[in-house]
Amino acid sequence: MPHPLRTLIEAADRAITAEDFDAVTEFYADDATLVVKPGLNVRGKPAIRRAFEAIAAHFNHRLKVGQGDMVVIEGADTALVLMESTLDAVDTAGADIATVRRATYVFRKSEDGRWLCAIDNSYGTDLLNVG
Amino acid sequence: MPHPLRTLIEAADRAITAEDFDAVTEFYADDATLVVKPGLNVRGKPAIRRAFEAIAAHFNHRLKVGQGDMVVIEGADTALVLMESTLDAVDTAGADIATVRRATYVFRKSEDGRWLCAIDNSYGTDLLNVG
Repeated sequence: MPHPLRTLIEAADRAITAEDFDAVTEFYADDATLVVKPGLNVRGKPAIRRAFEAIAAHFNHRLKVGQGDMVVIEGADTALVLMESTLDAVDTAGADIATVRRATYVFRKSEDGRWLCAIDNSYGTDLLNVG
Repeated sequence: MPHPLRTLIEAADRAITAEDFDAVTEFYADDATLVVKPGLNVRGKPAIRRAFEAIAAHFNHRLKVGQGDMVVIEGADTALVLMESTLDAVDTAGADIATVRRATYVFRKSEDGRWLCAIDNSYGTDLLNVG
């Protein structure tokens, strides 16, 4: 049986691909942080929603996100997810773009036992390359 | 001014180098998880303490740990720390061993505002290479 966080992340990625931003924001804690790109973090559900809208537009509404290998480490009502995140898109010239990132996500278990994403950093430790 | 988590991690690394395991365990949440090596996680302060004792013995009590670049991302009362972790030791033949890892740590803010380490994974996304 897959880990519940794999199931959750697969559902979140389907919502991102479908541009169902109401559903996307439901995966996040109220005060969650999303790393939009190196050097640009946004915090809170309204800002995260706007960032996903901008990302969808940036990729001409043809972005598809998916998952490769995944490692989940749980501790103290949190979880660290290490995951190969796949991004498929089409550039303005119509050429396919395929990217694989090694993402790092932090989840928190809420009082009712639900997992919510607290930190979404799809760039993983590559942020250490910046600056 | 350095981020409070940098100050905390520097103090934890000094305690590890000094083999002050009482002090080391104070940095962890009760139910925290330590990745000892790929495929071996331990959970809870007593098990984490025993792991650090074993690590110290493994390195013939000559392990020194330190920090390089660090990125801290806070969200929803948690923090993800990405950090170059430096390990200096001496092998059984007396040769120096120096290793740099790109570590990933998850911290939680406790009710009294203290940061406690919930997940200590010094291997970062390299765990995706295993298995």
